[in-house]
Amino acid sequence: MTIKLTIDCMGGDHGPSVTVPAAVSFVRSHADAELMLVGLEAPIRAQLKKCKALDHPALTVVPASEVVAMDDPVEVALRKKKDSSMRVALNLVKDEVAQACISAGNTGALMAVSRYVLKTLSGIERPAIASALPNPRGYTMMLDLGANVDCEPQHLLQFAEMGHALVSALEGKERPTIGLLNIGEEVIKGNETIKRAGELLRASTLNFRGNVEGNDIYKGTADVIVCDGFVGNVALKTSEGLAQMLSEIIREEFGRSLLTKLMAFLALPVLMRFKKRVDHRQYNGAALLGLRGLVIKSHGSADAYAFEWAIKRGYDAVKNGVLERLARAMQENADPLAQAARDAGGAGHANLAGRPAEPYAAVSSKA
Amino acid sequence: MTIKLTIDCMGGDHGPSVTVPAAVSFVRSHADAELMLVGLEAPIRAQLKKCKALDHPALTVVPASEVVAMDDPVEVALRKKKDSSMRVALNLVKDEVAQACISAGNTGALMAVSRYVLKTLSGIERPAIASALPNPRGYTMMLDLGANVDCEPQHLLQFAEMGHALVSALEGKERPTIGLLNIGEEVIKGNETIKRAGELLRASTLNFRGNVEGNDIYKGTADVIVCDGFVGNVALKTSEGLAQMLSEIIREEFGRSLLTKLMAFLALPVLMRFKKRVDHRQYNGAALLGLRGLVIKSHGSADAYAFEWAIKRGYDAVKNGVLERLARAMQENADPLAQAARDAGGAGHANLAGRPAEPYAAVSSKA
Repeated sequence: MTIKLTIDCMGGDHGPSVTVPAAVSFVRSHADAELMLVGLEAPIRAQLKKCKALDHPALTVVPASEVVAMDDPVEVALRKKKDSSMRVALNLVKDEVAQACISAGNTGALMAVSRYVLKTLSGIERPAIASALPNPRGYTMMLDLGANVDCEPQHLLQFAEMGHALVSALEGKERPTIGLLNIGEEVIKGNETIKRAGELLRASTLNFRGNVEGNDIYKGTADVIVCDGFVGNVALKTSEGLAQMLSEIIREEFGRSLLTKLMAFLALPVLMRFKKRVDHRQYNGAALLGLRGLVIKSHGSADAYAFEWAIKRGYDAVKNGVLERLARAMQENADPLAQAARDAGGAGHANLAGRPAEPYAAVSSKA
Repeated sequence: MTIKLTIDCMGGDHGPSVTVPAAVSFVRSHADAELMLVGLEAPIRAQLKKCKALDHPALTVVPASEVVAMDDPVEVALRKKKDSSMRVALNLVKDEVAQACISAGNTGALMAVSRYVLKTLSGIERPAIASALPNPRGYTMMLDLGANVDCEPQHLLQFAEMGHALVSALEGKERPTIGLLNIGEEVIKGNETIKRAGELLRASTLNFRGNVEGNDIYKGTADVIVCDGFVGNVALKTSEGLAQMLSEIIREEFGRSLLTKLMAFLALPVLMRFKKRVDHRQYNGAALLGLRGLVIKSHGSADAYAFEWAIKRGYDAVKNGVLERLARAMQENADPLAQAARDAGGAGHANLAGRPAEPYAAVSSKA
């Protein structure tokens, strides 16, 4: 089976100079992939030429005349730029020409346009952003990372259901463990929303492990950790900040004198292995979950290596039937009445119209 | 001036075997300090003997017959154990025999007993836990780290005022910068509480820098960062978890073979300097701010080196007149009407009686 993906080539801080080389490198190593490169034709073709891939059979250029800027408000992306590379790439997924879309564009805009174009899955009130964070045995899937600043208990339950479906699809785990991010393990810890979410999770059929704390993210205590988008975003960015400070201190200490530089040179093989293991670029690519289509959000500042990892995430998700699994899981878990109401009224969309700014305005462009 | 501190010798995972050696080491290097060692006499004296410090003139043993266990519920610490080392140590601060209390005990119990014994400062509705986190130029003071799971906008403003007073006292900075932890820099980001807190901060006389994100904690973007206790606790523990995972990976990579061990040996001076710079033990000691007395909370798992840092935090706070500064700052900032109401009714205490579990139950014993 050929796996067809659309690439929003104009998104991110660097646009085609990053997205196109990443796409070229990806198709060269994945014979069953076909990528549609969406955006302004001239710069895309210029990059393809540079990569000697103008005639690569697995790459097609799909023109789009507009670009959603990294600082464009959601409304502009949604209402003004109807021929943006982001929108055209998402439309190809909606029309089932492609199976997933990868974009490094503005998170708020990407979430809003994705939701508008693709609609939410039956059973999902709020899509979430999910990403893998490293732990000693592999990774912890964490959601939400910034799409929803305020969550009700049932949203956290839905995040858990989506995380369950995602990890079981990707990892082949029958019953991945679920943790609820809290500030203590005991049931009485946390605010009312968290306590109520804990009750819902305990009553569910999920493999709920109970409350987990911040340090459990990197311990691998649970396969999936759920939290609201505010807390998740702070945890993610705090981690980025700490990792960056530590790597700067290491560099500073090894760069202090000729002698320490010699030491760094001698220890280089180990330092390189360490660097490779903790390289955050290989965790690039967060999934926007809960939509009727697969969308992968790359870090805006990604380089070609990192962006290729985001493409890989989309490819793996398609290959493992993540969307079908998610849809099925939601179907099985959904309350039949609520679902009927949702199917009739399109609650996801109605919700968007009623409170346009809240869930999206909260999303950081760097998430 | 002699600086008199009380040490709750029974608190923490290790009790007197950690607290007493730390106290002995501290008075040996600080000639103007006098420490009162509070707790069960026999184990304290046994440890003093071991340290050859039974007759040290700056150390006094103050007997207390009970111990607050690390897993004791707040109610037990508060209502049952009236002769606990924690309570007796705090009473000595209340009675002005000592100027600060240092404890590695159960955070929830320590906060509750401190609040009961010392009462809150005029102008403060909710005490907060503040701690210094490293940044490339020094440290970022962050609060709240777990005392208050739900905060109203005015609580975040009070945290900012307390953080301001603390940092200006400790660092001699006239107008330390204040950041509001959020998920984006723009004013429109965050939930309603955060947005309203931003308005209050902008309208205040504080040196408010605006919204900051998780990575700013370790960048040193602001001298003080405020957030609610849930978010702060998650950020703190996420950092602990990441740092621990990274140090385990470094150890693993250098321990892989004889050759890599040789490399580690050759690079040892640099690795040791790095380790020393990022050693979290030197950041041990969080201040419980907003009380009519100074209380320093040590990490429960602290070793003697880390606990000595917590003692140092209490000593520095006394030396720099932190409490007087805090009281003055609160006086100046307080809304006269609200303050009058508080002084008349003792809102802090009334609040405790009305909702005993919520703010404390939320506190993690490991915060």
